Amino acid sequence: GVAQIDHHRELRQGVPEIILGESKSLDQLKTIIAAMQRNGSNILATRVDAEKATALCNQFPEAEYNVDARAFCLIQQKIENSGAGKILIVCAGTSDLPVAKEAAITARMLGNEVEELVDVGVAGIHRLLAKSDQLQKAAVIIVVAGMEGALPSVVGGLVAAPVIAVPTSVGYGAAFGGIAALLGMLNSCASGVTVVNIDNGFGAAFAANRINRKG
Amino acid sequence: GVAQIDHHRELRQGVPEIILGESKSLDQLKTIIAAMQRNGSNILATRVDAEKATALCNQFPEAEYNVDARAFCLIQQKIENSGAGKILIVCAGTSDLPVAKEAAITARMLGNEVEELVDVGVAGIHRLLAKSDQLQKAAVIIVVAGMEGALPSVVGGLVAAPVIAVPTSVGYGAAFGGIAALLGMLNSCASGVTVVNIDNGFGAAFAANRINRKG
Amino acid sequence: GVAQIDHHRELRQGVPEIILGESKSLDQLKTIIAAMQRNGSNILATRVDAEKATALCNQFPEAEYNVDARAFCLIQQKIENSGAGKILIVCAGTSDLPVAKEAAITARMLGNEVEELVDVGVAGIHRLLAKSDQLQKAAVIIVVAGMEGALPSVVGGLVAAPVIAVPTSVGYGAAFGGIAALLGMLNSCASGVTVVNIDNGFGAAFAANRINRKG
Amino acid sequence: GVAQIDHHRELRQGVPEIILGESKSLDQLKTIIAAMQRNGSNILATRVDAEKATALCNQFPEAEYNVDARAFCLIQQKIENSGAGKILIVCAGTSDLPVAKEAAITARMLGNEVEELVDVGVAGIHRLLAKSDQLQKAAVIIVVAGMEGALPSVVGGLVAAPVIAVPTSVGYGAAFGGIAALLGMLNSCASGVTVVNIDNGFGAAFAANRINRKG
Amino acid sequence: GVAQIDHHRELRQGVPEIILGESKSLDQLKTIIAAMQRNGSNILATRVDAEKATALCNQFPEAEYNVDARAFCLIQQKIENSGAGKILIVCAGTSDLPVAKEAAITARMLGNEVEELVDVGVAGIHRLLAKSDQLQKAAVIIVVAGMEGALPSVVGGLVAAPVIAVPTSVGYGAAFGGIAALLGMLNSCASGVTVVNIDNGFGAAFAANRINRKG
Amino acid sequence: GVAQIDHHRELRQGVPEIILGESKSLDQLKTIIAAMQRNGSNILATRVDAEKATALCNQFPEAEYNVDARAFCLIQQKIENSGAGKILIVCAGTSDLPVAKEAAITARMLGNEVEELVDVGVAGIHRLLAKSDQLQKAAVIIVVAGMEGALPSVVGGLVAAPVIAVPTSVGYGAAFGGIAALLGMLNSCASGVTVVNIDNGFGAAFAANRINRKG
Amino acid sequence: GVAQIDHHRELRQGVPEIILGESKSLDQLKTIIAAMQRNGSNILATRVDAEKATALCNQFPEAEYNVDARAFCLIQQKIENSGAGKILIVCAGTSDLPVAKEAAITARMLGNEVEELVDVGVAGIHRLLAKSDQLQKAAVIIVVAGMEGALPSVVGGLVAAPVIAVPTSVGYGAAFGGIAALLGMLNSCASGVTVVNIDNGFGAAFAANRINRKG
Amino acid sequence: GVAQIDHHRELRQGVPEIILGESKSLDQLKTIIAAMQRNGSNILATRVDAEKATALCNQFPEAEYNVDARAFCLIQQKIENSGAGKILIVCAGTSDLPVAKEAAITARMLGNEVEELVDVGVAGIHRLLAKSDQLQKAAVIIVVAGMEGALPSVVGGLVAAPVIAVPTSVGYGAAFGGIAALLGMLNSCASGVTVVNIDNGFGAAFAANRINRKG
Ligand SMILES: Nc1ncnc2c1ncn2[C@@H]1O[C@H](COP(=O)(O)O)[C@@H](O)[C@H]1O
Ligand SMILES: Nc1ncnc2c1ncn2[C@@H]1O[C@H](COP(=O)(O)O)[C@@H](O)[C@H]1O
Ligand SMILES: Nc1ncnc2c1ncn2[C@@H]1O[C@H](COP(=O)(O)O)[C@@H](O)[C@H]1O
Ligand SMILES: Nc1ncnc2c1ncn2[C@@H]1O[C@H](COP(=O)(O)O)[C@@H](O)[C@H]1O
Ligand SMILES: [Mg+2]
Ligand SMILES: [Mg+2]
Ligand SMILES: [Mg+2]
Ligand SMILES: [Mg+2]
Ligand SMILES: [Mg+2]
Ligand SMILES: [Mg+2]
Ligand SMILES: [Mg+2]
Ligand SMILES: [Mg+2]
Repeated sequence: GVAQIDHHRELRQGVPEIILGESKSLDQLKTIIAAMQRNGSNILATRVDAEKATALCNQFPEAEYNVDARAFCLIQQKIENSGAGKILIVCAGTSDLPVAKEAAITARMLGNEVEELVDVGVAGIHRLLAKSDQLQKAAVIIVVAGMEGALPSVVGGLVAAPVIAVPTSVGYGAAFGGIAALLGMLNSCASGVTVVNIDNGFGAAFAANRINRKG
Repeated sequence: GVAQIDHHRELRQGVPEIILGESKSLDQLKTIIAAMQRNGSNILATRVDAEKATALCNQFPEAEYNVDARAFCLIQQKIENSGAGKILIVCAGTSDLPVAKEAAITARMLGNEVEELVDVGVAGIHRLLAKSDQLQKAAVIIVVAGMEGALPSVVGGLVAAPVIAVPTSVGYGAAFGGIAALLGMLNSCASGVTVVNIDNGFGAAFAANRINRKG
Repeated sequence: GVAQIDHHRELRQGVPEIILGESKSLDQLKTIIAAMQRNGSNILATRVDAEKATALCNQFPEAEYNVDARAFCLIQQKIENSGAGKILIVCAGTSDLPVAKEAAITARMLGNEVEELVDVGVAGIHRLLAKSDQLQKAAVIIVVAGMEGALPSVVGGLVAAPVIAVPTSVGYGAAFGGIAALLGMLNSCASGVTVVNIDNGFGAAFAANRINRKG
Repeated sequence: GVAQIDHHRELRQGVPEIILGESKSLDQLKTIIAAMQRNGSNILATRVDAEKATALCNQFPEAEYNVDARAFCLIQQKIENSGAGKILIVCAGTSDLPVAKEAAITARMLGNEVEELVDVGVAGIHRLLAKSDQLQKAAVIIVVAGMEGALPSVVGGLVAAPVIAVPTSVGYGAAFGGIAALLGMLNSCASGVTVVNIDNGFGAAFAANRINRKG
Repeated sequence: GVAQIDHHRELRQGVPEIILGESKSLDQLKTIIAAMQRNGSNILATRVDAEKATALCNQFPEAEYNVDARAFCLIQQKIENSGAGKILIVCAGTSDLPVAKEAAITARMLGNEVEELVDVGVAGIHRLLAKSDQLQKAAVIIVVAGMEGALPSVVGGLVAAPVIAVPTSVGYGAAFGGIAALLGMLNSCASGVTVVNIDNGFGAAFAANRINRKG
Repeated sequence: GVAQIDHHRELRQGVPEIILGESKSLDQLKTIIAAMQRNGSNILATRVDAEKATALCNQFPEAEYNVDARAFCLIQQKIENSGAGKILIVCAGTSDLPVAKEAAITARMLGNEVEELVDVGVAGIHRLLAKSDQLQKAAVIIVVAGMEGALPSVVGGLVAAPVIAVPTSVGYGAAFGGIAALLGMLNSCASGVTVVNIDNGFGAAFAANRINRKG
Repeated sequence: GVAQIDHHRELRQGVPEIILGESKSLDQLKTIIAAMQRNGSNILATRVDAEKATALCNQFPEAEYNVDARAFCLIQQKIENSGAGKILIVCAGTSDLPVAKEAAITARMLGNEVEELVDVGVAGIHRLLAKSDQLQKAAVIIVVAGMEGALPSVVGGLVAAPVIAVPTSVGYGAAFGGIAALLGMLNSCASGVTVVNIDNGFGAAFAANRINRKG
Repeated sequence: GVAQIDHHRELRQGVPEIILGESKSLDQLKTIIAAMQRNGSNILATRVDAEKATALCNQFPEAEYNVDARAFCLIQQKIENSGAGKILIVCAGTSDLPVAKEAAITARMLGNEVEELVDVGVAGIHRLLAKSDQLQKAAVIIVVAGMEGALPSVVGGLVAAPVIAVPTSVGYGAAFGGIAALLGMLNSCASGVTVVNIDNGFGAAFAANRINRKG
């Protein structure tokens, strides 16, 4: 077989394995999804392009596909809210939305309540400061930003909660496909901001879920 | 003045400002520490080299200095345990110890109970697997590793708790001062591992403290 | 002529020259393959895209093409098993399969017995440990992995046999097209792991063949 | 001779040539300064280390040396205020002060009125917002910051005046000696922020002077 | 909504927000432009590709699109000349024209008088020297160059006015998509040259406008 | 106009300006070629893709286009042999041929006699050594190689003539589009090998022509 | 304790753990060596600087230290020859000798017969060709080279045996501390050359030992 | 022995082998120089630091050492002028002098007449234009420049002779130890400029000698 699905993970981590769709062929995806379907798990495949998604939705008509987030979901069991608090996803600009959406879908799939805050980049700082209350109430904050990636530094200085920064590949030239934002976040002058890979909304949500699980 | 100390931070985040000693002159450090001392806070300065530390310990005789971690501490108030669980610091090799120590000192200073696990790198995987129990019980795990930085991927696959990875500058040649480990951790195939800057034990502990604060 | 085929190599190294298809035009490929065909050698062309392959298979109907591995083979003589032991190809994830397949086809073409082990990445370490026997019996092990490239460190620590690591370009963002995996492998904390170029399944198999030739 | 001093520059640009001390030997510096002294110009040499400065101050007793900024000045003519407004130098952290000082000294030397604002980094954003008035009144603003270099984005969004960003080499690990800050500034989401080389306080001041010269 | 348009910016900076078209979908662009249209502002969207532009021009028939500059403009109010002097845009080669055009359109949109000088690269230095008068009269100079990016150094040495350098992605091989030009400009041996992101004609014009606004 | 053609160059350097076709539009190319045609010069445009070339050959029926080299030539005057000796172009592999061809066409266009040697890479060193005579007789040698770029080191050690190395973008993975070959050539252990940009066959030929012009 | 020595390794791999001295303190080294001494193993510590070595040799008078290789050895048991054939270490230049020596010492310590060939770089190719016999007879060849790292390509094309390439940090400028050589070797046009980390003579010898162990 | 001196080179290339002093120990240098002395050749060792040079000059009292160029020379035979014309070395700034001096000493040692032109960087272009005559008369021009490395583009556009560019490590921040200058030179918009390694004055002179040898 092409994959040894880690069904065991649900025991170890309380969450089903999630499929990274990107470099898998349509056939590989079908095989893996079918195997997980038989197992009764909820299924999430990320980074599935629109063309593959159409074919998958034909094969699995109960599934749903979010085109911005490139996320394919097949819900087989009701998702229980297993989170201690709310996860807030803060998104710097309109162009960062696909990554923020991937994070939101993943976090909800893993049983969390999610709120979203969009287009509050640091070049118009009053837009963020106006949302102070929402920031203070969140249990975990995911901050999604491209270009210079400065937003997590400002958010990280305003709140006591865990802050997970997601650099995006938004930008051009010396943005280097997200490297500028990634480096900015790794060097945040706000203490204790942690970082995931460029465009990795999925990973940020998974990390937020690790934190937010009811003890 | 050379610095506007952010005393306000204690209100916003429940922790005192911590001083990054590295590129400050001895005089700047003395001025800042004296100002914080008057404020009554506990004081932690990281990345203070041995020479500056000697002079500081003369000036502030109640202080303590940990030479491996390059950490200068001046405790003025009893530290309350404010953590919900234990923070476990897992350290891949002997050479990564200074970074792990910086994390341990910071985490304790911020009011957490800390355990340490040393020399359990992936090239002798049985050493890590033998500590399975300790891994399962931790509320937050900080994994410190240099060279290829593979350890957080293994740990992240074994536990459900939050895992914060700290790449170290240990290694040579194509380790590129920690870049190899940093990239390895950002690309971890274990889901939801978050990463801080190279050698940033402090930041990892601060992030762990954000997670571990009693709700 | 466009190429001076190194027929002499068969004498020097006991193996025929293998064609790197990637930046050759269809015409160049036809010319070179025809010349080698006249010489009676077995022919392997790697990195031949599907479009060129179709045209080549029309021209050389006895040939075979493996679309995943992008490998074009034309067998003119029975391949003798010239290997002292088995070559085991260990593949971290489903997405790394094309590179693993290129390695397998090359190794078999050069006269080796080959076994394959798939989807045993380090984030679910029990999957690898369950195959301990197979690992211990191999004469040479090729480990194919993308993302953080941690698998060769674990394998290299478990066995005494030669381990050749192949980084793949699987991953995104800070995977940098295989650089993260490459650096991870070059800095492996398991001693004596050697490395070939990103996605170079062919090179790994050729190196394994150098090792495995019957003395 | 070792140098062809560009006395002509004073005609072309209204300012004397300024000496880059860094990779010049003490002898070269003496020769060049003596030649400019004979010419009657005011002299500024930047990046002169303390050891060379001591020798130069012995030779040119009327000179002054600022050890933080590593700037050597020899004033031979009264400096006329030639600026249309004030240049404000905003400095993110204490560790960025040497670069800010180099900028301040250069700007004053070139005939500008200068104000300084220190330790107003984005992790404690209230410190900057409290200085809103001072920001609004400046004719040109130089923003000096290391680590993630986020401050110019916030300042650039608050004011209509020209903003020149200076990345500093403050930070460690993935700060890469100022690259993180440089990239952050080049990708600022505030429009029309311009950037100079890492640690180039001199260049920022020279650019500010080009802008601030009385029409 | 997908965007919180910063109408407030017109108050803070005297200019309307400008839309970065690149990673926005057609729907997002339509929504944002329609909102700004209702507000009565002049609208500029940069980096809009020809396909999206066609659809937008259908929807907003009063708009104009410049295909070289990839700039979409919708003028709703007469643009007042708010500039103190002329902005001169100096363009090294024919291939750099799209970036120079983006700068010219933006600068004019913001109320400036603009002149352009094309194909005056340093390999035929007499072409630039012949335009000495035009250079001396400009209030602000934007220099657009790819490949080695040497032109701003020569221009910066000839004039006293502010010089803003724009590296372009023109070139191949070790030009690295504009990195060579960017580094060249950051290291200009002419003092006080400032730099914006690769291909960022918009940003250079915005910076020139900050400088050129009537006091 | 889009370009100020440097007709003056023929006086300064004895050769006509050559057009870099790559980032010019078809219209720009037509305008420039027509202007040079009126001037009576021979015309060479490099890096012209096949689509543009077809349109140009329609417009200028006397022209010729070499598809491998992507070179467009329009000969209006007989080319005099102005070279003191022969230029030898040594090409490591079949895949490097397009770059070698660009060099050959340019060198011939500039009035030189050219010889070519193909597929003599260092992995079969006997192929090069067999051509020792040809190497010794050349006045200038251009060595074109991708991958590890080792060939100029061997050639440079065998001959006393000038050796110009051209790295190509042939290779994959850690070849990084020619960087590996470029670095190899810059660090050649053979003394006095000079290097041009990646894939810059044109530049190598132009440099060879500077050397080979009859005194 | 500071280290969990992997005594178990001797069982898994037939060789004792070897100590990486570089970032260990003198105290850590003493502790680890003493523990291994009690275990009766032969001890090798690599990358031990001369100062630490002096102190160690005082403490362990039976030990030997090779200053070029920076290798500290303490032999407690006779080393059995466990190799099937000879390991040949080919060293490009005099400056690469320390790395070659580290490889030689390690290989002998692990029970192999070793030969060395020095100063046979590719710029004087006749020096290598003169040693053809020695090359043909080796069971495994380690090739150590800095600068452009071309030697393994030539050797790899001449022999059928396994070739392990070790890039060294010898060189300056664009050698980038061994990156040029590393990339050269990873892109070797000789098939099946494998590579270890920059300056990693130890790793090459360990890999050679894996290959050369008597079946 | 530590080195196989390539005495044979004098036959192949008409010049003696030249020693790269940098990473050789004093003992290695003594051994090699003594061997060449016995052979009667003229000896040049480059990159010899002052400390080693003192010891060498004691041992070889007839030798001379140039401290700026770090060049050690031992002349045993009169140097014949073997050059067809003059080599002109053009040096951008005072700080680039050590590299220019290394080039001058090497070129003279190899039998060439050399002229030098200093401090003619592009920021004061009139200084270079004033030397037009000297530029036109040179047979070969070596251009040495750091920072943005723009000078070879201007020189290359002014003359028909061969131009060899040497980037220097002069500069700071984004100069990246000479990378900015190197990239600038590789991307020169003047055609046919060739480039050597950063700070490689020796290599440039050796290349110039290859060109300038009397046919
Ligand atoms: N968008 C994503 N980015 C990074 N990792 C992911 C993503 N989606 C899924 N994964 C992880 O990738 C692993 C699946 O890889 P695979 O077995 O190749 O499907 C899972 O363990 C997920 O936790
Ligand atoms: N071509 C461009 N390059 C960089 N920034 C731009 C460009 N065009 C517009 N912008 C800026 O991008 C911001 C708009 O981003 P958004 O809100 O995503 O449309 C505006 O504030 C502009 O100032
Ligand atoms: N393939 C090429 N690579 C680098 N430079 C070239 C190339 N072809 C032409 N050139 C140079 O580019 C300049 C022409 O640029 P342009 O004026 O934009 O056509 C000429 O001066 C040529 O010397
Ligand atoms: N010079 C070296 N380079 C790379 N790895 C080494 C070197 N010397 C020893 N090692 C490996 O490093 C590991 C020891 O690391 P440690 O436990 O930190 O002493 C051992 O497993 C050795 O196999
Ligand atoms: Mg899987
Ligand atoms: Mg502070
Ligand atoms: Mg071939
Ligand atoms: Mg000067
Ligand atoms: Mg916006
Ligand atoms: Mg032109
Ligand atoms: Mg160990
Ligand atoms: Mg030698």
